[in-house]
Amino acid sequence: MSIITLTTDYGHKDYFVGAIKGKLIAAEKNITVVDISHDIDPFNIAEASYILGRAYQGFPVGTIHIIGVDVEKNHENQHVAIKWNDHYFIGADNGILSMMLQGSTPQEMVTLNLGESVKDLSDIDIILYSALHLVHTKSLESIGTTTTSLKSISQLQASISTDAKIISGNIIYIDHFGNAVSNITRELFYKNVNGRTFEIKFKRNKISTIYTKYSDIAVGTNYPIKNYEGLQMALFNEAGFLEIAIFKSNPNVGSAKSLLGLNYHDVITIEFN
Amino acid sequence: MSIITLTTDYGHKDYFVGAIKGKLIAAEKNITVVDISHDIDPFNIAEASYILGRAYQGFPVGTIHIIGVDVEKNHENQHVAIKWNDHYFIGADNGILSMMLQGSTPQEMVTLNLGESVKDLSDIDIILYSALHLVHTKSLESIGTTTTSLKSISQLQASISTDAKIISGNIIYIDHFGNAVSNITRELFYKNVNGRTFEIKFKRNKISTIYTKYSDIAVGTNYPIKNYEGLQMALFNEAGFLEIAIFKSNPNVGSAKSLLGLNYHDVITIEFN
Amino acid sequence: MSIITLTTDYGHKDYFVGAIKGKLIAAEKNITVVDISHDIDPFNIAEASYILGRAYQGFPVGTIHIIGVDVEKNHENQHVAIKWNDHYFIGADNGILSMMLQGSTPQEMVTLNLGESVKDLSDIDIILYSALHLVHTKSLESIGTTTTSLKSISQLQASISTDAKIISGNIIYIDHFGNAVSNITRELFYKNVNGRTFEIKFKRNKISTIYTKYSDIAVGTNYPIKNYEGLQMALFNEAGFLEIAIFKSNPNVGSAKSLLGLNYHDVITIEFN
Repeated sequence: MSIITLTTDYGHKDYFVGAIKGKLIAAEKNITVVDISHDIDPFNIAEASYILGRAYQGFPVGTIHIIGVDVEKNHENQHVAIKWNDHYFIGADNGILSMMLQGSTPQEMVTLNLGESVKDLSDIDIILYSALHLVHTKSLESIGTTTTSLKSISQLQASISTDAKIISGNIIYIDHFGNAVSNITRELFYKNVNGRTFEIKFKRNKISTIYTKYSDIAVGTNYPIKNYEGLQMALFNEAGFLEIAIFKSNPNVGSAKSLLGLNYHDVITIEFN
Repeated sequence: MSIITLTTDYGHKDYFVGAIKGKLIAAEKNITVVDISHDIDPFNIAEASYILGRAYQGFPVGTIHIIGVDVEKNHENQHVAIKWNDHYFIGADNGILSMMLQGSTPQEMVTLNLGESVKDLSDIDIILYSALHLVHTKSLESIGTTTTSLKSISQLQASISTDAKIISGNIIYIDHFGNAVSNITRELFYKNVNGRTFEIKFKRNKISTIYTKYSDIAVGTNYPIKNYEGLQMALFNEAGFLEIAIFKSNPNVGSAKSLLGLNYHDVITIEFN
Repeated sequence: MSIITLTTDYGHKDYFVGAIKGKLIAAEKNITVVDISHDIDPFNIAEASYILGRAYQGFPVGTIHIIGVDVEKNHENQHVAIKWNDHYFIGADNGILSMMLQGSTPQEMVTLNLGESVKDLSDIDIILYSALHLVHTKSLESIGTTTTSLKSISQLQASISTDAKIISGNIIYIDHFGNAVSNITRELFYKNVNGRTFEIKFKRNKISTIYTKYSDIAVGTNYPIKNYEGLQMALFNEAGFLEIAIFKSNPNVGSAKSLLGLNYHDVITIEFN
């Protein structure tokens, strides 16, 4: 039983996702198709990269991840497949993969060649049928010709100042709860904190505590937990990124995005004392 | 083949649900994972309880239902699992389960103890891995220590007046069509109607007929059915609750919620003559 | 292993879809249930027909397609099942099927009779249990009585003028990207173009090129592709229909619907020179 995942910006209403699943199942009984997300903001390669880069880690090695975002082959973007951390990723070389790899080198990398031999296949079909072929061969060479580089996208990276006093980052994702995820990792923080106190600054706000989980903010005399709802807080989220959150956030009522005005690309810093 | 269902407030965009499915499949080939809903209003335990309490009944006995709503373990809420009506439910003891049980006693009930032996698991992972263990053992004792009570939540309950003249209830859910579902059950109504006529009152509206199905309103001289669209009506819905509906309701155009101003918690009464 | 697909207007929040899947799995281990769409606009038979009519083609012959849109049996609409292009479709005879067939005749056609023998089944349950029976028998006669006609719906059809100078059509669907799909087919266009130049007219706009794929618009001196984003264009989409699109359309920013004011039912013509 092979596993194929789908990460697309096709939404849930149109016939696209249903048709893809039909084609996969029609061609191969012995697979399990799992949706990762179909709600990627249209053509948003940063979002696709963040979501797939987190979700794939839950799947077993050998899983084939189809990326249905901005898939048209054109004079800028080729169809490609890579093997990375023993997972397979297949889509267009539009920057999603290079953002996800963050400088690391894939184990293997090919340009798909199915489109050359079979004419009149749509772009997504080339990707689907290449993925199905991969189910059997588990060999990237069977679906393309080896290539050595991916389209490079200059991605927002968190950095530490030369005097080691300030970590600068950006918001890279607003999640379903309206919480704002930055590109400052737990790793970067702990490598530089050295026991110093610090202030997290964004917009006009300051926070001087980073929690381990959401409800850690609700430990104190202000019992019960209900009374802490709506407070702003910072924590390293499950994916290891610094996140500015509202405790028990409901975006219909108010979230880090709506209440604190945080949005994609906004600057966030940690200033050490 | 075991069945595991998911009811969460994680939405469809983030990587959370994809990662959960990956982890479940990676750990255990022999399961089918079925989504019940990922669109629970964030942290809304009443909604989670209503939706799961209706949906689980369609599944075969022995199904394991994972509840991914407000799962953080803290000084108020423990991770728990119960066996009830031969189904397993696993999540946090935050009130969802006690609202769903409505006073009935589960067959078994445990506090999960996986979090004590394996450190650094996230809350949802403790729940996932406990569920996976349950797939094999089908024994709650294997994943926790027996407990005897759930966190009690004072839930809105429909009631009949002492003179048996008025049933009082509340709106507990607005569905996808914008129809308003109350907590007045078919059972409570028929136990008390005794052949009397009645008026259903809510906001400034009155209705004196309860239909069995939606299109029963469209039986009359005003043919064809199209001409009945947009009429307000009351019926006992498939789940057995009194519902105020708009015939052929489209919330983009107008629904019980938008047209009649009905919302969560609003009062609804049935007054017998 | 049989395949059952679901096309409904039930949305993703309510318990309906979860309960349906539970019932199908509980009754029959040997099936794969695939979602086509649950986001059909409520009671919109044109949308259901367009989406299912495109999606089913991806599935293997013998697939059973359940249509959960406007399913109530009443004095206008019966429950029916048809076999068409070696696929099975089952739902209410409310116009969805006749719109999908566009005048072609199904291989077989029955009125469901399960509702007569088993009382108190809800409409969707009659459809579900008939579908499950069909899994075993693969015979429509086993679930209903033969009928010879479907409810006919006068659907918007594209046409060519008698002087062969103008093709007239309408917008029949707005997709997830906000692109506007018309009922003018590639077939109708090529049968009539005869080497003439032409103008596509809609609202106050004119377009004189039809592309084969989206990024074909981005071939020229205005390199890179990024500079073409937001341009309006016409193409025959994957389903073979003339579509007015915005290149790299994001409906949150601007789409054919919002920027060009195109909506369901709007007129679109191709005038040949």
